[in-house]
Amino acid sequence: MQNLVNRRWLLARYPEGTPVPNDWVMDQQPVPDPGPSQILVKAKWLSVDPYMRGRMSPASNYTKGVGLGEVMHGGGVGEVVASNHPAWKIGDIAESMSVGWQEWSVLTPGIVGPAGVNKIDPKIAPIESSLSWLGMPGITAYFGLLEVGRPRPGDTVVVSAASGAVGQLVGQIAKLAGCRAVAIAGDDSKLKWCREIGFDVGINYHKAADLTAAVKEVCPTGVDVFFDNTAGPIHDAVMRNLSIGARVVICGRIALAGQFGKPDIGERFMGHLIVSRASIHGFLVFDWWHRRDEALRRLANWRREGKFQFKEDVLEGIERMPEAFLRLLHGKNFGKQIVKIS
Amino acid sequence: MQNLVNRRWLLARYPEGTPVPNDWVMDQQPVPDPGPSQILVKAKWLSVDPYMRGRMSPASNYTKGVGLGEVMHGGGVGEVVASNHPAWKIGDIAESMSVGWQEWSVLTPGIVGPAGVNKIDPKIAPIESSLSWLGMPGITAYFGLLEVGRPRPGDTVVVSAASGAVGQLVGQIAKLAGCRAVAIAGDDSKLKWCREIGFDVGINYHKAADLTAAVKEVCPTGVDVFFDNTAGPIHDAVMRNLSIGARVVICGRIALAGQFGKPDIGERFMGHLIVSRASIHGFLVFDWWHRRDEALRRLANWRREGKFQFKEDVLEGIERMPEAFLRLLHGKNFGKQIVKIS
Repeated sequence: MQNLVNRRWLLARYPEGTPVPNDWVMDQQPVPDPGPSQILVKAKWLSVDPYMRGRMSPASNYTKGVGLGEVMHGGGVGEVVASNHPAWKIGDIAESMSVGWQEWSVLTPGIVGPAGVNKIDPKIAPIESSLSWLGMPGITAYFGLLEVGRPRPGDTVVVSAASGAVGQLVGQIAKLAGCRAVAIAGDDSKLKWCREIGFDVGINYHKAADLTAAVKEVCPTGVDVFFDNTAGPIHDAVMRNLSIGARVVICGRIALAGQFGKPDIGERFMGHLIVSRASIHGFLVFDWWHRRDEALRRLANWRREGKFQFKEDVLEGIERMPEAFLRLLHGKNFGKQIVKIS
Repeated sequence: MQNLVNRRWLLARYPEGTPVPNDWVMDQQPVPDPGPSQILVKAKWLSVDPYMRGRMSPASNYTKGVGLGEVMHGGGVGEVVASNHPAWKIGDIAESMSVGWQEWSVLTPGIVGPAGVNKIDPKIAPIESSLSWLGMPGITAYFGLLEVGRPRPGDTVVVSAASGAVGQLVGQIAKLAGCRAVAIAGDDSKLKWCREIGFDVGINYHKAADLTAAVKEVCPTGVDVFFDNTAGPIHDAVMRNLSIGARVVICGRIALAGQFGKPDIGERFMGHLIVSRASIHGFLVFDWWHRRDEALRRLANWRREGKFQFKEDVLEGIERMPEAFLRLLHGKNFGKQIVKIS
C-alpha cells in the first residue's frame, strides 16, 4: 500500500488543563501493509470520547497514556481492504478501539477485550452505531445504570451530560426500567430534545441560580440514582439531594477537563452519605466487557422495537478530529460526537 | 420514688464546633414513677459515643436532635427497680439507647428497633459489655465490616480510630476473616496494643510526616477495605491508596467534630474511584438492627472462644459524663469510653 497516504494525528505535547488544537500534529505516512494474521482497515467513522483526555498524559491511570509522537488513541469503524486473517475478508466491516485518529489502520483480530476487533453487521444498524449506542457508549450506559446504579421502578434517576452519548441512553433505559428520569444539561435545546426522547424533566445548569435548589425542586423525594458524567458543581448539587439508599455512579468527569491531573478541591459529602446510607461507585465499562454481547443484543432489540432514539453530532474529515474532540470537552456537541472520514 | 433524686445532664446550648463542658447543665429531679407497662431503671453504666455530637444540633440528620433543656441522649444499662410490665421484674438488667445521661430512667419495653429495651443476661458477659462489644458498637463493627466492607481472605483492611470501640473490633473481625489488618491511631501505646490484639501493623497519624506515603508503605498492594471512623486527613491518605475494587465504609467522622455542620472542604477522589473502580458506602448501624441478634450471638461465641479482646476506658460518676464525651471527641480515650454510675 506504499502508494497510498495515511493521514494521522499524533500527540505533539501533553496539555496542561484543557487541550488546545496545537496539542496534536497531523503527519502523512505511507499506508502500512498488514502483517501475518492482521487486517488493514480504511476508516469510515472515527469516534471522540471523553476518556481520551485521560490518555493525553504521561501518567497512566487505568491504562497507559499516548506517548508523544504516537498516534492518538481512539475507536473507529471501517472497511477491510486487505486481510491476512482467515476469518476476515475484504469488504468486511471492522470496529475497534485500537483504530486511532488516522485514516488507515492495521488491526490484529483475536485480541480478547476492549482492544479487540469486532465484526460489524451493517444490516443491524448503520455501521457508525458501533461507535455509539451499539458500542462502547451503549455498553457504558447499559451496565453503568443497570448493574452499578441498580434502578428500581419508581426511582428518580438524575443524569448529567444528559444529551451526550452515554447520558441520552441512560435516561431512556431508566424510563424502560420504570424510573423517573431527570436530565441535566447546559442548553435549552438539548433539554427540549431530552424531554422529547422521554426524560420527565430537565435542568439547565447554566441558567439555574441555585443548582442545589433546582435539583431539590424537581426531585422533592430525593435522588435515588445519580449517573454522573461531569463531576464539579453539578455533582455537588445532586449530592446534596440524595435519598436514603441512593446510588451514585461516577462514570466521567468532563467538567474537570480543564484541571486534569490536579486535585479536585471542594465539598466532601461523607456526612450526607452516612445520613442517606448512600454509596458512590467508580465505574469503568471495561470491567463489564465480558458481557458486551448481552448489552449489544439488548440494545439492538430495543432499537428495533423503537424503544429509544439516538442523536449523533457529525463532523466530516480526518482534519477535524481535534476540533471534534474539543467540541466535546467544551460541551458544544449535541449528541454523540463522531467524525465521518471521506 | 419522690423521695429519691435523679441527677440528669440537660443540653444547655447547641455547640459551635467542638462541644465544651458548659454545653450541658446538671439538674436534679425527683425520680419518676413508671407509667402503665413501663419500667424504672437505675443506671449502672452509661455510654458515650461519637454519634452524640450529631444529636447536639437543632437540625435532624438521620434522627431528631436533643432539644435545649432536654436530657442528653445516650445508651445505658442498669437494674430494674420498679416494673409495671409483665415481662420485666425487679432485679432484671435492662439495656437501651433510650436511657439518656441520667441516673434513673423510665423505659417502655416493647418498642422494636434501636429505641427498644433489651434484657441482658449477666451470665454471658459483664453487663457493661452491652454498651460495647455485645451492643451497638459490636453490631456496628460486625455489619459495617462484613456486610458493607465485604472483606475477602487476603484483603488489606485499614481501620481508622483503630483502638476505639468499633475500630478494635473491626480489626479483630478482619483477622478472623483472613485479612491483613492495618491500624491507624494517634498514639504509640494504642498502636502497640492494636498489634497485641492482632493488627498486623500500625500507623501513628501524629508522627507520620507524609501520611499518604505511610499508608502506601504498609499497603504496597493497595487498600482493599477502608473502615473509616474519622474522615479528615486520615481519610485522604487512605483514599489515595485504594486497590482495584476497594470498598470504603464511612462509619464516622470524629476528626470533624470541631467543624460539625460546616461543609467539609478538601480533595475529592472521584478520579481515583473511577481508576480503582472503588466504592464508598455511607453506613448507619440502625439499618441492620433487624439482624442484631445474629451479630450478638456471633460476637458472644467468638468472645467465649477467646477470639477477640476488648478494651474499655472507664470513668466513674454521673458528674463525669461531659468529661467522658469530650475525652472521646479529643481522642483521649483508650478503648471504649464508658462511665460507671455509682
